[in-house]
Amino acid sequence: MLSPISWNDELGCVHLLDQTKLPEIEQWMDLTGVAEVAEAIRSLAVRGAPAIGIAAALGCALAAFVEDSEDPAILAAAVLAAAEELGGTRPTAVNLFWALEKMKERLETLVASQAGVKELRAGLLAEAQKIREEDIASCRAIGRFGAPLMPNEGGVITHCNAGALATGAYGTALGVIRAAVEAGKNIQVFADETRPLLQGARLTVWELMRDDIDVTLICDNMAGYVMRLGHIQACVVGADRITANGDAANKIGTYSLAVLAKRHGIPFYVAAPWSTVDMSLSDGDAIPIEQRDAKEITNPRGAVFAPKGTKVFNPAFDVTPASLISAIITDRGLVEGPDMIQGLLALSEA
Amino acid sequence: MLSPISWNDELGCVHLLDQTKLPEIEQWMDLTGVAEVAEAIRSLAVRGAPAIGIAAALGCALAAFVEDSEDPAILAAAVLAAAEELGGTRPTAVNLFWALEKMKERLETLVASQAGVKELRAGLLAEAQKIREEDIASCRAIGRFGAPLMPNEGGVITHCNAGALATGAYGTALGVIRAAVEAGKNIQVFADETRPLLQGARLTVWELMRDDIDVTLICDNMAGYVMRLGHIQACVVGADRITANGDAANKIGTYSLAVLAKRHGIPFYVAAPWSTVDMSLSDGDAIPIEQRDAKEITNPRGAVFAPKGTKVFNPAFDVTPASLISAIITDRGLVEGPDMIQGLLALSEA
Repeated sequence: MLSPISWNDELGCVHLLDQTKLPEIEQWMDLTGVAEVAEAIRSLAVRGAPAIGIAAALGCALAAFVEDSEDPAILAAAVLAAAEELGGTRPTAVNLFWALEKMKERLETLVASQAGVKELRAGLLAEAQKIREEDIASCRAIGRFGAPLMPNEGGVITHCNAGALATGAYGTALGVIRAAVEAGKNIQVFADETRPLLQGARLTVWELMRDDIDVTLICDNMAGYVMRLGHIQACVVGADRITANGDAANKIGTYSLAVLAKRHGIPFYVAAPWSTVDMSLSDGDAIPIEQRDAKEITNPRGAVFAPKGTKVFNPAFDVTPASLISAIITDRGLVEGPDMIQGLLALSEA
Repeated sequence: MLSPISWNDELGCVHLLDQTKLPEIEQWMDLTGVAEVAEAIRSLAVRGAPAIGIAAALGCALAAFVEDSEDPAILAAAVLAAAEELGGTRPTAVNLFWALEKMKERLETLVASQAGVKELRAGLLAEAQKIREEDIASCRAIGRFGAPLMPNEGGVITHCNAGALATGAYGTALGVIRAAVEAGKNIQVFADETRPLLQGARLTVWELMRDDIDVTLICDNMAGYVMRLGHIQACVVGADRITANGDAANKIGTYSLAVLAKRHGIPFYVAAPWSTVDMSLSDGDAIPIEQRDAKEITNPRGAVFAPKGTKVFNPAFDVTPASLISAIITDRGLVEGPDMIQGLLALSEA
């Protein structure tokens, strides 16, 4: 089972697949410092809301191993500094902050119980491992809840990569597709290439081909035409943050896809672990949207796409309002749209 | 004034800008054979429905100059063979067939009047020159009719390149924008990059920057978000073929943009010379849609965007139904939507 991020027991460090090198090169990295983990998140070597959360958790654990002081207070301070550094990498995915919060809570408990440095290290690593393992279990649960929503036969479009590569393993949106295929459904996946960074073309196509799941790549601007031709029976995407009313931030372009789905009467599903739900925000307008470098658009993968000095607008995410979402598929169950406030509240108390 | 295609009087051949090399290199070519002109159309060195029509017309004239027989019948046969070859290059833009028809009519008239080879050459070149000059005049007229539809102040989004580079000069959609700017309107242009071949990023940005018109490049999938932010007050695009009911074929992605505009209550305009209107087709379902090579998507401009062996769907155009079009802006005047049958019929008889 493909897992893009884990703990390297032998070396005592963070092991991850450098997704910026895909699809040409499958290059794995062993990161031995917190700054390297932060840079891996910033540079998108590891990406996808759940995987970012796992990376942040493992990064905190790593901080405890890297700090060789025998003083538990110094070790705890190093972990808190790591959490601070990792929290500054990317603003939109809430899983990052959720995972750091989990790690800080565990640290607090350990400190309160007068744990020594050995116990601190073991406890923090256990917590990070648990976050990772629970994420994989979440993806399986999302798959179970989502598979019945997929057509028995037909096309399913997805945007960006909400697959194994975006999670501990198995995927959220692609987890739903995998579970549907495992249940014997005959699904043709259409993958938006997902400009500017091409997570659809580079990652979704790569991991679905690896699993022998039928996938056809299109440019983002072809989605409407493919829907109009009748090739699409459902849309399923991931999310980086879902607010209390069911608005969902996800990779830029998701909103356009949801509008197109609505126009064509095609159900639009958002699949995400509960850690993606941010009940502290009432709606999507409050979600911070990361702006990224112009070069991602003008010079992707070494090519020249636009004149020198081109002015660019490059938001990494957009927000799809709950009114365009047929259902949110979480590991705690489904919340059907368009009015999702009560449903999300009920699951938050589950 | 930038004109991408013309007749080189000195060398007696077709002179054009190789648009596949933009924005890095501004390389002009002198084409001395019909096969080279056909290849320039096929490879998109020259593209845009009006410019393709001009290229085809000049290609027919070139055939008459290249054929050095003193027998008018042999020369006429060479021109007809050229028309056949040029007609096989690209199926969607109707201007190609319209221009070839014009050239064949002129040839017929010349042959009927017992023209010698000298008269044949001069007459055919004059016809091709007239097609080019009338296209430039058409663009100016489109600009005059369209400028009042543009906001006095605000954002206008366009897709692909319907600019000077797509016409004899000045442009259709960009002609409307140029005329509005010349009339003193304060317009911020948003240019969709237009995957897979990036006519927006490479060509529209290039020619607007050259004219000091404010332009911001976005990826195609960002259009919905930019509309939602309130940055867009109008859309204007070109067309490759418009049917009798007002359906319009244009670069892939146009349909998605029109759906997004409708959702946001933003007017959506199609600007094209009358030669783009095909009254012989009742609606857009009858327009042939060109499918192009997978490599345009997987390997643009030397970069690797997807794994080897990726299955791809690559239609070059889509059809926007008249119901999504606020008005068609032609050189003969405006036709307002959504019911355009009578309006187009009236102009066709003008």
